[in-house]
Amino acid sequence: MPVTITHADIADLCCGSVFLATGGGGDPYVSQILVEQALKKHGAVDLVPLADVPDDAFVVAIGEVGAPTVSLEQLPIGTECLDAVDRFEAWVGKKITHIVSFEVGGANSVIPLIAAAAKKIPLIDGDGMGRALPEAQMMTFAIEGVRPTPAVAVDYAGGATYFDTADTLLYERQIRNIAMAMGGMVFTAEHPMSAEEARRAIVPGTISFALEVGRTLTRHYGNAKHVEAPLRALFDRSDYGILKHLYTGKIVDINRKIVGGFDVGEATIESVGGNAPAMKLSIKNEFLVATVDGRVVASVPDLITMVDHETSSPINSERIHYGQRVTVFGIGCPPHYRSERALKVVAPRAFGFDFDFVPIEKL
Amino acid sequence: MPVTITHADIADLCCGSVFLATGGGGDPYVSQILVEQALKKHGAVDLVPLADVPDDAFVVAIGEVGAPTVSLEQLPIGTECLDAVDRFEAWVGKKITHIVSFEVGGANSVIPLIAAAAKKIPLIDGDGMGRALPEAQMMTFAIEGVRPTPAVAVDYAGGATYFDTADTLLYERQIRNIAMAMGGMVFTAEHPMSAEEARRAIVPGTISFALEVGRTLTRHYGNAKHVEAPLRALFDRSDYGILKHLYTGKIVDINRKIVGGFDVGEATIESVGGNAPAMKLSIKNEFLVATVDGRVVASVPDLITMVDHETSSPINSERIHYGQRVTVFGIGCPPHYRSERALKVVAPRAFGFDFDFVPIEKL
Repeated sequence: MPVTITHADIADLCCGSVFLATGGGGDPYVSQILVEQALKKHGAVDLVPLADVPDDAFVVAIGEVGAPTVSLEQLPIGTECLDAVDRFEAWVGKKITHIVSFEVGGANSVIPLIAAAAKKIPLIDGDGMGRALPEAQMMTFAIEGVRPTPAVAVDYAGGATYFDTADTLLYERQIRNIAMAMGGMVFTAEHPMSAEEARRAIVPGTISFALEVGRTLTRHYGNAKHVEAPLRALFDRSDYGILKHLYTGKIVDINRKIVGGFDVGEATIESVGGNAPAMKLSIKNEFLVATVDGRVVASVPDLITMVDHETSSPINSERIHYGQRVTVFGIGCPPHYRSERALKVVAPRAFGFDFDFVPIEKL
Repeated sequence: MPVTITHADIADLCCGSVFLATGGGGDPYVSQILVEQALKKHGAVDLVPLADVPDDAFVVAIGEVGAPTVSLEQLPIGTECLDAVDRFEAWVGKKITHIVSFEVGGANSVIPLIAAAAKKIPLIDGDGMGRALPEAQMMTFAIEGVRPTPAVAVDYAGGATYFDTADTLLYERQIRNIAMAMGGMVFTAEHPMSAEEARRAIVPGTISFALEVGRTLTRHYGNAKHVEAPLRALFDRSDYGILKHLYTGKIVDINRKIVGGFDVGEATIESVGGNAPAMKLSIKNEFLVATVDGRVVASVPDLITMVDHETSSPINSERIHYGQRVTVFGIGCPPHYRSERALKVVAPRAFGFDFDFVPIEKL
């Protein structure tokens, strides 16, 4: 039986998605409003468990590509995803039967719901990352061998670019450069999948899990110490396996610039008493590596999540500012990212760090 | 009556095209071989005067976009333009009736002949620049209001990108970024035109004129002093109106780097006796401005052409090297570029120089 997502779920879904986004995925503030409106207007969206996707399904991934900082200034009007669906279907000459999010992360978790609602296309309960990550080749779709194209990138000038490229690394370069050409952000429909590919390549259950995370945060509203136990209980019994408190402190430094179409930077958090060594977070759209005193305490592909210490609201990397009191959690990654093939593209070395991935449960 | 272009014309056409390319358009060495082979295999190409284009024509511009230096290393296989035509026609759902070159410049003058020959599509005697220029908005197509897309960029990895953008400046950013993503060069089919648009926007007669320039250079083979009079006679009675000797000397400095997908640099030429002040040439793919002792002696949109002093072979900017003995000519631009609307996008200020355009006949 499919579950449905209604406008009343969106606030929690956004909250849980930012929690899983490890800083990336784009701030969902504007998207949340747009999605709530769309769901009020068009009705609820069917959320289909991956196991229930029929054999003749034609699944397409939908989401935004670009630098999250840009999403704070270059606002969507909410119909880009409809344009992407229309253009994709017209180009490929085939109707999309199921939509899937690239990443259960920030705005990208909820934006596909606009297309799903308006077009009456069900959304698969799952995504291509189980978190957010900056590049196309890091998606489980790519790791499981799904061709990235045909793909369509709709831009905020009302135009579109269409891609026919077999290689995901080339596609990543192209889509990134088009996003840069169009001001830093585009909306794409990509990675078309058969049911067989979808079952292999999609991380299952992540949308409903994000909703559950959001509900837990809402229910236990309060400081990070207060929500830690219920969150830990939730993650312990999920595919993520583990949630650990890593640090509590104050943002004392944040530098961030747009490099090659990504937000790249570093945040420094000092303990409030000032007697413990500081934590440093390396950022490429997402939080990649957390170190304390030069020692790695968590790294990609495991999740590093920052919340406001007093309210436990998760914080996107582009929302970090000086003086915030924050708590940082480390979370295990979905099993899809623990294979050797996956680690080749998502482990710290894939981002230029000179150390091997050690799972968070061993750190 | 249409003229035809045969394989025996290609060497002269390449030579004349590099002369008109003002340093840009890409070195035609490899293209020449590919085009000669294609014309031997598929037969001659009909060269149609612009005035003879029928009212129901569907004209599409074909050529390479990128940094000319890249063309020395990333070699075409010769079928990219066929792929571009096939993909364009399949996407738009319409057969191309006439091909036109973007620019009568270097490789870009002859590469469209491969598609014309293999697909039996006539080539229009004309182009979109009457010379070469680095950016899409500088084409007479754009200046005369032709929409740049639908457009297809075929890359050297066997893939393609398709563009639907109304604005030429956005298109220029997109195609440039895709060229960069694909190693610096792509092959495109773009600027589809009706007969009415073609008549307004194409600079007429430039392909046959390039052939005539090439034949003149071949016939009067020898040093630049020797060919100057016959060249002057040829340009005097053309739309270009004037050819002037600007400088003879030795390349003593050339710096060149790829910036934003363009070759950008400066060449310095010293007089051989050493008693006259040096000439400096500013380069952005093409030669933009020639100064002697800080005084402008020629600038875009007028043509600045460099030839080997001893042989009068025209020299592409990417072939400039230390120690070459060269002669530099200045040539008037086609009347299409003398309007206020055109000068807005092709005058020195459009390239960031802080001076107004003064036609070469007044310098």
